[in-house]
Amino acid sequence: MARTAGSNGEKTEAAIREAALRLMARHGFEAVSMRQLAAEVGVQPAALYRYFPTKEELLYTLMRAHMEALIASWEAARPETGDAAARLAAFVDNHIRFHVARRHSTHVSNMELRSLSPARLSHILRLRGSYEKELRNILRAGAQSDVFRIEDTALTAMAIIQMITGVIVWFRPDERLSVEEVAHTYHIMTLRLVGAAA
Amino acid sequence: MARTAGSNGEKTEAAIREAALRLMARHGFEAVSMRQLAAEVGVQPAALYRYFPTKEELLYTLMRAHMEALIASWEAARPETGDAAARLAAFVDNHIRFHVARRHSTHVSNMELRSLSPARLSHILRLRGSYEKELRNILRAGAQSDVFRIEDTALTAMAIIQMITGVIVWFRPDERLSVEEVAHTYHIMTLRLVGAAA
Repeated sequence: MARTAGSNGEKTEAAIREAALRLMARHGFEAVSMRQLAAEVGVQPAALYRYFPTKEELLYTLMRAHMEALIASWEAARPETGDAAARLAAFVDNHIRFHVARRHSTHVSNMELRSLSPARLSHILRLRGSYEKELRNILRAGAQSDVFRIEDTALTAMAIIQMITGVIVWFRPDERLSVEEVAHTYHIMTLRLVGAAA
Repeated sequence: MARTAGSNGEKTEAAIREAALRLMARHGFEAVSMRQLAAEVGVQPAALYRYFPTKEELLYTLMRAHMEALIASWEAARPETGDAAARLAAFVDNHIRFHVARRHSTHVSNMELRSLSPARLSHILRLRGSYEKELRNILRAGAQSDVFRIEDTALTAMAIIQMITGVIVWFRPDERLSVEEVAHTYHIMTLRLVGAAA
């Protein structure tokens, strides 16, 4: 069946993005050339430039998509009611599942910020900030209702984010533990970290 | 006063290593050329190759030195006696101080493993493994003496390492908190994470 130009275009763009994440996660942004990326996707370099005029534009698109998807996944997972411990458990669970399912994208997003222009870096950091604020709000709500013991909200939020993002460094889905088991153990550790009864 | 050739050589090598860490932390291993590094140090590229025949050899030297210094600092800081909680507190404190004092080296060591040859990668991972085993031993000792509650020793060790290494991502010594305050707060959070009374 013939495809419309639009759907072919979307498939090509998706293939470029997926190949870019795979290559950049493996070799680093600086080491991957647009020429190499075009060869990986099986298109001419000129075709690549129609979708992404610069390599930095491609990186920015990938990072923005990563953060927007993370925020959207939390908005879908966020309990509307419930105490702070239930909201924290949902945050940890969603964060681990999201990142484990997107290892390449997470590596690129965490490691290549230095390659963005200042204006684009600011935008990505604003998206990150708004996501992390959700966690700080949960921590503050828990502290105010005496469910959590928090010495420093900002430090605690960073500690939790780094602890749960770090799962992607060592977790492989076909090894000893399932993502559900890992998320559950991290959930228990996080609740203890903030002084909540499990 | 005239210097011996040896001391000049040592100073040049130290200058190369320091410049390499600074440039690689900022731009990434792949993006830094030996030519650029020589210009930064103020020597001819040929002089650089006398110290480090390849860029990968330089990277390996930097990573090995980082891990050996980390292990040595823990051997110096490790309490010979004391319960598991005191040993864990010493581990967290030493780890945070060491990494905050070596941000560039930590970035390079954490981000550039992919650029090592398999044999050299194995050696660096063995050094890492022996360091992380120290933490796992502390966690096991604490669990056996009912001082800690640990669901999974390996996961808990990774969670703690990633949480405390992550300090270098956001910590700046001239801002709101001193390294002592940060280390103290992380020490309290870590003890709670393993279910120990602070």
